[in-house]
Amino acid sequence: MALKTLSAKAAAALDKELMSTGAFSIDQLMELAGLSVSQAVYRVHPVNKGRRVLIAVGPGNNGGDGLVAARHLRHYGYAPTIYYPKRPKNDLYQRLTKQLEALDIPFTDDFPAALKSTDHVVDAIFGFSFSGEVREPFPAVIEAMTETTVPVTSVDAPSSWNIEQGPPKSGVGSSFNPDVLVSLTAPKPLIKFFKGRHFIGGRFVTPAIARKYDFDLPEYEGIDQVVEVGPNGQKL
Amino acid sequence: MALKTLSAKAAAALDKELMSTGAFSIDQLMELAGLSVSQAVYRVHPVNKGRRVLIAVGPGNNGGDGLVAARHLRHYGYAPTIYYPKRPKNDLYQRLTKQLEALDIPFTDDFPAALKSTDHVVDAIFGFSFSGEVREPFPAVIEAMTETTVPVTSVDAPSSWNIEQGPPKSGVGSSFNPDVLVSLTAPKPLIKFFKGRHFIGGRFVTPAIARKYDFDLPEYEGIDQVVEVGPNGQKL
Repeated sequence: MALKTLSAKAAAALDKELMSTGAFSIDQLMELAGLSVSQAVYRVHPVNKGRRVLIAVGPGNNGGDGLVAARHLRHYGYAPTIYYPKRPKNDLYQRLTKQLEALDIPFTDDFPAALKSTDHVVDAIFGFSFSGEVREPFPAVIEAMTETTVPVTSVDAPSSWNIEQGPPKSGVGSSFNPDVLVSLTAPKPLIKFFKGRHFIGGRFVTPAIARKYDFDLPEYEGIDQVVEVGPNGQKL
Repeated sequence: MALKTLSAKAAAALDKELMSTGAFSIDQLMELAGLSVSQAVYRVHPVNKGRRVLIAVGPGNNGGDGLVAARHLRHYGYAPTIYYPKRPKNDLYQRLTKQLEALDIPFTDDFPAALKSTDHVVDAIFGFSFSGEVREPFPAVIEAMTETTVPVTSVDAPSSWNIEQGPPKSGVGSSFNPDVLVSLTAPKPLIKFFKGRHFIGGRFVTPAIARKYDFDLPEYEGIDQVVEVGPNGQKL
């Protein structure tokens, strides 16, 4: 039984539905998505294994999830550093950024240099709305994440991958295979090309929404906001 | 060493500051506050001890925290029922209510009847901005929570208590002493009259804010959003 997945188009429709008939605000959803990511990082890389986490933040909602995750990680005792080269004039992202500054979390302009002194990387550059070419300055960042031996956790999609087709056939990202992936709400079709540890997060989807979009709600445990799953979606 | 507390006035100023210089939205703060409450309930009353939780929701932000907690409890596997007699025309509360309806969570108009078939009660009626008299229809609800043998968890303050002076000298609430209290951000002065299990929640306060308002950040563990503390604020 293969894992049911959500196409890029369906993921966009689901997001829209959560905020219309679902009555969620983007602030709420991003808070819960980022919280999921922070819990997955805590699981794969406990704080006593090295506090330093470098978070690569993209210009859209995937980046916003990364900003929220960074705040929670800081509260858990990690020492995050943020790489956030493209900052849209969006009120929410600006507020999330301010929340990090209030915790004295450093921002860096030099991803490759920061990569030399971190224990874990979070790839929150592109999510389910990505398609086409990786634009500057991200190609070098994806190359660096491809080559590094530091473990990388990607949010929703390995950045540069096509949501349906997986890694590009050549060029930037073609050899990128992160160690961990946190699928938000449901895995995307690219999951069949992914070889690492796989978590599902986003414990706010109703059974009715899951039925409508034809995917299965994972079996979360206790108060966890993420669950690790195997290749067929079974709980690990 | 006595536990440092936050007066009603200071708690209001802190809330305001979190949303101005702190750059948090009310959606975000309420999500995290309600999440804290749900985690405390999970701790004191695990789902396998009885799934039914009756949540008494007041007309303000304390009620909003209760609505958020109800949603998370539902996702943890509890069967919440909501008593929400006074519903202001506030967009956020309406959305939080809709999120519960989307999970088929029942609402009741009859608190005493619902109390007869529940395993736990959450008191989210009044918080730090309460003062004066308990208005209708809440006196009977507080009387029922006073008399019941079902354990009660209060959010931020036992409803009807004065934030500084504790329980009223006579009348409604004078004998109300809930089993559990979840103080949000920091305990209020009423804590010295409280005899039950005490949790602190709200893992989003920065060290700078805690210094400014002269309280200590509790030592949360792991990814927990709440911590149980003793009479002097020590971790239990």
